[in-house]
Amino acid sequence: MTIKIIMDTDPGIDDAAALTMALNDPEIDLRLVTTVAGNVTVDKTTKNAQKILRFFNKDVPVAAGAKQPLIKEFEDAARIHGESGMPGYDFPEDLPKPLDKTAVEALHDEIMSSDEPITLVPTGSYTNIALLFSEHPEVKDHIERIVAMGGSLGLGNMTSAAEFNVFTDPDAAKIVYQSGIPIVMVGLDITMQALLTPESLSKLEHMNKTGKMLHDIISNDGDNSEAGIAMHDVNTIFYLLHPEAITTEAMWIDVITDGPAIGETVGDIRGAYHDGETNADVCVDIDSAAFNKWFLEEVAAINY
Amino acid sequence: MTIKIIMDTDPGIDDAAALTMALNDPEIDLRLVTTVAGNVTVDKTTKNAQKILRFFNKDVPVAAGAKQPLIKEFEDAARIHGESGMPGYDFPEDLPKPLDKTAVEALHDEIMSSDEPITLVPTGSYTNIALLFSEHPEVKDHIERIVAMGGSLGLGNMTSAAEFNVFTDPDAAKIVYQSGIPIVMVGLDITMQALLTPESLSKLEHMNKTGKMLHDIISNDGDNSEAGIAMHDVNTIFYLLHPEAITTEAMWIDVITDGPAIGETVGDIRGAYHDGETNADVCVDIDSAAFNKWFLEEVAAINY
Amino acid sequence: MTIKIIMDTDPGIDDAAALTMALNDPEIDLRLVTTVAGNVTVDKTTKNAQKILRFFNKDVPVAAGAKQPLIKEFEDAARIHGESGMPGYDFPEDLPKPLDKTAVEALHDEIMSSDEPITLVPTGSYTNIALLFSEHPEVKDHIERIVAMGGSLGLGNMTSAAEFNVFTDPDAAKIVYQSGIPIVMVGLDITMQALLTPESLSKLEHMNKTGKMLHDIISNDGDNSEAGIAMHDVNTIFYLLHPEAITTEAMWIDVITDGPAIGETVGDIRGAYHDGETNADVCVDIDSAAFNKWFLEEVAAINY
Amino acid sequence: MTIKIIMDTDPGIDDAAALTMALNDPEIDLRLVTTVAGNVTVDKTTKNAQKILRFFNKDVPVAAGAKQPLIKEFEDAARIHGESGMPGYDFPEDLPKPLDKTAVEALHDEIMSSDEPITLVPTGSYTNIALLFSEHPEVKDHIERIVAMGGSLGLGNMTSAAEFNVFTDPDAAKIVYQSGIPIVMVGLDITMQALLTPESLSKLEHMNKTGKMLHDIISNDGDNSEAGIAMHDVNTIFYLLHPEAITTEAMWIDVITDGPAIGETVGDIRGAYHDGETNADVCVDIDSAAFNKWFLEEVAAINY
Repeated sequence: MTIKIIMDTDPGIDDAAALTMALNDPEIDLRLVTTVAGNVTVDKTTKNAQKILRFFNKDVPVAAGAKQPLIKEFEDAARIHGESGMPGYDFPEDLPKPLDKTAVEALHDEIMSSDEPITLVPTGSYTNIALLFSEHPEVKDHIERIVAMGGSLGLGNMTSAAEFNVFTDPDAAKIVYQSGIPIVMVGLDITMQALLTPESLSKLEHMNKTGKMLHDIISNDGDNSEAGIAMHDVNTIFYLLHPEAITTEAMWIDVITDGPAIGETVGDIRGAYHDGETNADVCVDIDSAAFNKWFLEEVAAINY
Repeated sequence: MTIKIIMDTDPGIDDAAALTMALNDPEIDLRLVTTVAGNVTVDKTTKNAQKILRFFNKDVPVAAGAKQPLIKEFEDAARIHGESGMPGYDFPEDLPKPLDKTAVEALHDEIMSSDEPITLVPTGSYTNIALLFSEHPEVKDHIERIVAMGGSLGLGNMTSAAEFNVFTDPDAAKIVYQSGIPIVMVGLDITMQALLTPESLSKLEHMNKTGKMLHDIISNDGDNSEAGIAMHDVNTIFYLLHPEAITTEAMWIDVITDGPAIGETVGDIRGAYHDGETNADVCVDIDSAAFNKWFLEEVAAINY
Repeated sequence: MTIKIIMDTDPGIDDAAALTMALNDPEIDLRLVTTVAGNVTVDKTTKNAQKILRFFNKDVPVAAGAKQPLIKEFEDAARIHGESGMPGYDFPEDLPKPLDKTAVEALHDEIMSSDEPITLVPTGSYTNIALLFSEHPEVKDHIERIVAMGGSLGLGNMTSAAEFNVFTDPDAAKIVYQSGIPIVMVGLDITMQALLTPESLSKLEHMNKTGKMLHDIISNDGDNSEAGIAMHDVNTIFYLLHPEAITTEAMWIDVITDGPAIGETVGDIRGAYHDGETNADVCVDIDSAAFNKWFLEEVAAINY
Repeated sequence: MTIKIIMDTDPGIDDAAALTMALNDPEIDLRLVTTVAGNVTVDKTTKNAQKILRFFNKDVPVAAGAKQPLIKEFEDAARIHGESGMPGYDFPEDLPKPLDKTAVEALHDEIMSSDEPITLVPTGSYTNIALLFSEHPEVKDHIERIVAMGGSLGLGNMTSAAEFNVFTDPDAAKIVYQSGIPIVMVGLDITMQALLTPESLSKLEHMNKTGKMLHDIISNDGDNSEAGIAMHDVNTIFYLLHPEAITTEAMWIDVITDGPAIGETVGDIRGAYHDGETNADVCVDIDSAAFNKWFLEEVAAINY
């Protein structure tokens, strides 16, 4: 049995790796890719998504989405992902055309026409999802759950409080967290643990054409360290396939939309302030070795 | 020369009167009516808009919009506008069908296909407009200006700080006020001055069929006083046609989206906090007698 | 029977007039004057208070208080009150010495040693009162009530939201409003109604030495209009002596301490958001003619 | 040369250990102890401070301080520190009398009469310090620096955002962080690293009378784990004596005083939002083995 998902994404280096896994793993049925401004502008993230699809000759539809956050001004992350958002590899330029409708309309149509509930996998900021819920609230009953990269209980990466995806559009994140849909928060608490080690990266290079491509773009990540490189968005796909390797805790998550803590996901870790209610399963621990092993096996299994 | 407008509305008693003027005044070319939850649910506000159109046998297209605000929970105003939102008159029930697209898409299509810039006249909460700007930012270059009922420099009507339309969806109002489009704030500062007097209301009753209809629904307004009844939304149409009867001041308006002042429009009345920049023309004074005179003349001129 | 009061003040022109009434009206027993930064620095407000006392040869003790607000940065109102805070009259310079203790300690000692509960009359920002409640919470049981100039339900005078005294130290105001002590909010809602008319001001000039002094300083107020000059702080004393001339409404008042509405007093005017609880009696209407008549009678009765 | 300090504290188990070190280390000259509500009520924290002084027969003056935070409602931490705040050891009950003045006045008098600048070591919430700075701003020029336990860049211990001391009185913390005085933030980022190991705790028991006392109260800490027990406040004294064992980073710290992130210390970790300005040296790493070694040596050196 496969898991039907839609990825809403802003590639981005780790996003490209997440797309690679989602496109090729037989247990995942990727129905639609929607794009959003984030790591770079939406024009670039749309092209980058299409490059990955073209690389694998997959014809999953792509719809371009929000050019900027709902309320907050847009700031990209080109300092980490480079000007193009996905430098280091020479992709073909004959790209498939994106759909002739907005991401919101494409999400609506795909979700409402599916015969079973869809899992949403947002790995950029959540602007498209928030617009979708506002304009078409009826879709909520047709979503299985949301497995979202973003947020942090502990240290952030924009300020000490805020992680990039939620920081980019905190109002959209607030809409998503109060939607009532089951949500798994795949945040820095695990993505900064499950680093792709230098050994893993080195093995990718000579594995196959896919490994070479991933090696080349990952090597351009501006946020590396001796211990390895965070593969943030890939953790969502890993969670879908191997939930047993990740520890989650159910708790209430509030999103801060204003002031110096803007973009923070505050967890009621002691269950003291929301009458025992919870709105998210928060990933708090991960088997980092299992993550690296799986990552290499996934790429090896792609016959390309 | 006519003024091309789109009304985004939640009828509502005063909204119905505003629609009446916009539909019948020869200087106004009403291109589209979009609806939003507000005074009552969006299903009811859509039906109420259609009832007015049907009453006048006008075929202006109607598109149903947002069922709830972006982030804040929805609270209606049925205590003032009655359960149906427009009680007191027996409208025909053979209503025209609303468009088969969302308000956002209808707004986008109408604005982008118009050969000259459109004036937006929101008289409910601004959810549809905010979604439009987020999903289709390119429309902003094709909008002449926004003449919006809502907000208050002085006393509010929900709390002392907040007026109903902005209170209903403060995040949408924030998006609209920071859109960069010229905006005229038609708030309580004038709408609580320009009351329809008991004498005016009485004259309406026997004027013509239109006057009888308006008399009957206005008489059901829960917010009347000895001095008269506020015709909030009608002030937008009056401003479009008779700006000389209204005093405006340019200033910076901030919208409060959280805390006890939620829904407030804060005006930098002394120009002290935004380096002399302004984002709105705020209506601060109105010739109330001129308003009453015009209201009656408009209705009299409707040959029905 | 007299009303025992302490004035906490930042003279200031209207403050000086309020002090004049409090010092001379036989029904008021002014036990202590404490000063605070506000209209001008605390060094100047202390001297100005002493000048009024010296003018009337009264030996009410004066204690100097807070140099700046609790958290917010200090901004004075010299644009209205002049550099000295009380220009236009040549006061004697042989001033009594202020007490050799802080305003907080003086307030504590006076309140705790009084044989009956004291009424606090703050007419500047409430920094001293907030510090007093924080450092000596036991005083709360010995305070009859607080009759405080400050706040506004309608239009503010710093932004459209905020009145000067509350704006100057909103955190202190929040502490005072949540203290649990009965509080009468004497805000702009009445003080902008009860203007001292040009006729009243003119009568003062030749009434007696006191009238001349008040006339000369009031004539220097930068905030006058054709209709008259607001005597903000004087309304507290008028309320103490003539509550029958002022309409109050009990409601819940929240104080905004952050963001663009900083310094606003938000009133739950419809009783919708605090389960019917109230924490203040808010002055909403005043007999302006009665105020002017009383003002002149008070000055005439001062045999000096 | 000794370091002149004042401890402002709310014992509390780890506070008692910090006091023990400060009282007995020859390089520290503890001039005054002030107390504040926190772990338990101020009556209890005052008695607990006195018990430690009495245990060592030291006559350092003690002044009782704030009964509650400036604005936020008081919540204690008796679930961790027990009802008394310092259970598990049978202290003598003939306690020295606290000073006959408030903590604020005692702080003022000690700081202003000292011939050299004083280091403030707050290990509870910062209410007294905030009141001191508000009422006597002149003391700021006589303070060497503030070495304060409290705050967290990463995970909090009340919510995921907030640490207990700052959470207890966030407004006071904001006042302290914007005071302009050099401040070292000794937060959970190091105190959750430098756990007192079970081996260290076990060695304490039979070391001497002091070791036995500390062993007995620390064994009652409700917040222990297999890895050890956090000695939060003791890290301030360790930092004063062994700064070489702790890594700090200069950055800007904002304190959140409202909303779900209330009590958070937000660090501008990338230096992106305050024009390169910093207001704190934040402890980010500690040599945990060195901390344990020092802790045991300090106790061993106490000839009692």
